[in-house]
Amino acid sequence: MQNIIKLKNPPSFFSHAAVGGYEERRGPLGENFDFSDESDRFGMKTFESAEGEMGRLGLNLALKKGSLSHERLSLIVAGDLQNQCVASSGGLFTFGVPYIGLYGACSTCTEALMTLAVMMSECEKYEFGAAVTSSHNSAAERQFRLPLEYGGQRPPTAQWTATAAGAFVLTRGPGRVIISEAMPGKIVDGAIKDASNMGAAMARAAADSIISYFSLSGLSPSDFDSIVTGDLGAVGSDILAELLSEAGLSEAARRHLDCGLLLYDRNTQDVHAGGSGCGCSASVLSTYFLPRLGSGRMKNILFLSTGALMSPQSVQQGQTIAGIAPAIRIISQF
Amino acid sequence: MQNIIKLKNPPSFFSHAAVGGYEERRGPLGENFDFSDESDRFGMKTFESAEGEMGRLGLNLALKKGSLSHERLSLIVAGDLQNQCVASSGGLFTFGVPYIGLYGACSTCTEALMTLAVMMSECEKYEFGAAVTSSHNSAAERQFRLPLEYGGQRPPTAQWTATAAGAFVLTRGPGRVIISEAMPGKIVDGAIKDASNMGAAMARAAADSIISYFSLSGLSPSDFDSIVTGDLGAVGSDILAELLSEAGLSEAARRHLDCGLLLYDRNTQDVHAGGSGCGCSASVLSTYFLPRLGSGRMKNILFLSTGALMSPQSVQQGQTIAGIAPAIRIISQF
Repeated sequence: MQNIIKLKNPPSFFSHAAVGGYEERRGPLGENFDFSDESDRFGMKTFESAEGEMGRLGLNLALKKGSLSHERLSLIVAGDLQNQCVASSGGLFTFGVPYIGLYGACSTCTEALMTLAVMMSECEKYEFGAAVTSSHNSAAERQFRLPLEYGGQRPPTAQWTATAAGAFVLTRGPGRVIISEAMPGKIVDGAIKDASNMGAAMARAAADSIISYFSLSGLSPSDFDSIVTGDLGAVGSDILAELLSEAGLSEAARRHLDCGLLLYDRNTQDVHAGGSGCGCSASVLSTYFLPRLGSGRMKNILFLSTGALMSPQSVQQGQTIAGIAPAIRIISQF
Repeated sequence: MQNIIKLKNPPSFFSHAAVGGYEERRGPLGENFDFSDESDRFGMKTFESAEGEMGRLGLNLALKKGSLSHERLSLIVAGDLQNQCVASSGGLFTFGVPYIGLYGACSTCTEALMTLAVMMSECEKYEFGAAVTSSHNSAAERQFRLPLEYGGQRPPTAQWTATAAGAFVLTRGPGRVIISEAMPGKIVDGAIKDASNMGAAMARAAADSIISYFSLSGLSPSDFDSIVTGDLGAVGSDILAELLSEAGLSEAARRHLDCGLLLYDRNTQDVHAGGSGCGCSASVLSTYFLPRLGSGRMKNILFLSTGALMSPQSVQQGQTIAGIAPAIRIISQF
């Protein structure tokens, strides 16, 4: 039985930061990143460690922008795409802050914000907490698909895993932009077995969550400036539009924006169907949506990062790829 | 800043079940497992799918014992040891219940119960929810260490990953055994690089959490029947006892029990330093502690599953193995 959690003490965004690599800096949102390293290395020897460093840098920058010491944080909720989520645990352990690790594939940004918001709403001692998510193109490619050196050709449905991290500090105190509601998503099997077509595997989960949300909330898509998905890309976004229209929610399709299509310029950047990865929705939330919500240009969005639940081994063993799309409602009280 | 979350609406255990394999059936708690398959296959073609099936069977059994339909569940919080946590998502998607995936290595059982308990305390619509964790020896060995066929010799510090799953249904309604408090753990680097000595890597994290808990709560170890760790094994338990005594908590060391030492009989079973894995603390909670709490034989335990945060790649790349130990307080209101 799916429910929308209406937060009793909705936490607000205190500060946030985005960190990115070469392609992210070149993209339409590049100017808004707080830090980028065009070498994609972030001073580290391996791409895997670089991903952890991106999360660490992102959180440090968010704390700095808010003039907040990490000692004020009661909790970090974090996740990434690496096996056993080692980018997050390896990058963030230096803060010495209590930690909850999550895995929701590319849905982790919303999953982390949702979990953190509920924990903060429940516990009055939690004055500040942080959600951090990251992905690294080079670490993900060699883990999930082929070694980079192989130079394999990617099909048009493939997406480009973002080399990016987003860090969000929430506070229990008052603020301009709040998380008012959260709704965990169901695992939906899109019956796709092609690890180079994640958009299609996730579109059905996104549709399921959006349809459920409007059915449970009694709200209509026109109550929202945007209905945002994490990384469906061009292929998945088309499928989502069709599924929403079939469900009588074509207004939701019209108000739909996908972070994977905002992060890069597909005309000038070779990202095929668009961006993906935990860092995609996290960095676009920080560089695109939160500035608009903070200035009052947007008032109200439904934000659903989208995840494809598979491992290279599960795909090799013939399992289908399921999707998941948790949702949070973010409101500007400007 | 670490805090103890005192749950406003402490959820209670509604029902629970444990599923295990060959070694678990042979062990001292074998009779208490709700289902075991001595082939370790659980009707599946691969060990990886078998792990997912164990979680599914465990949750089905817990629901059946409580005469509850899965449709009454508002949320499943789950995790396992497989890359990208595919055992949980693959095994549990058939329920069609909203899902939060976690990764805390072998600490996932406590992490899941903690997260679920907080979500249920916050949202009055969440009448029932489930936490499920699993591990499979054969899936873990070939993923983390060596292919089984290789027959590599294991050092005395090595532990035996449990082929086991535990499923717990919590309810917001009244019940005999409740989760009253939760405390996320800090990531503590034990400066260990040996993937065959997880107990040592995790002992420092367990000590950190236990010391923090007693410092923050103002309680003393004698207020508890047991202080329970997930899978420190013989090596890690000895280190923990030393660290606790150094901190002036030798009473906590005297009341310490480790699930990894309860699950197997080390005299007759070749498990080296003891049991480990997400399924270890989960199945021992279900087969040993909850029956005692339910009957009033135990009144009050501090339960800390312990996790080693590493991946095979992070170890190969020279990273140290960090540990984490979230804590929950479980009280019998008999």
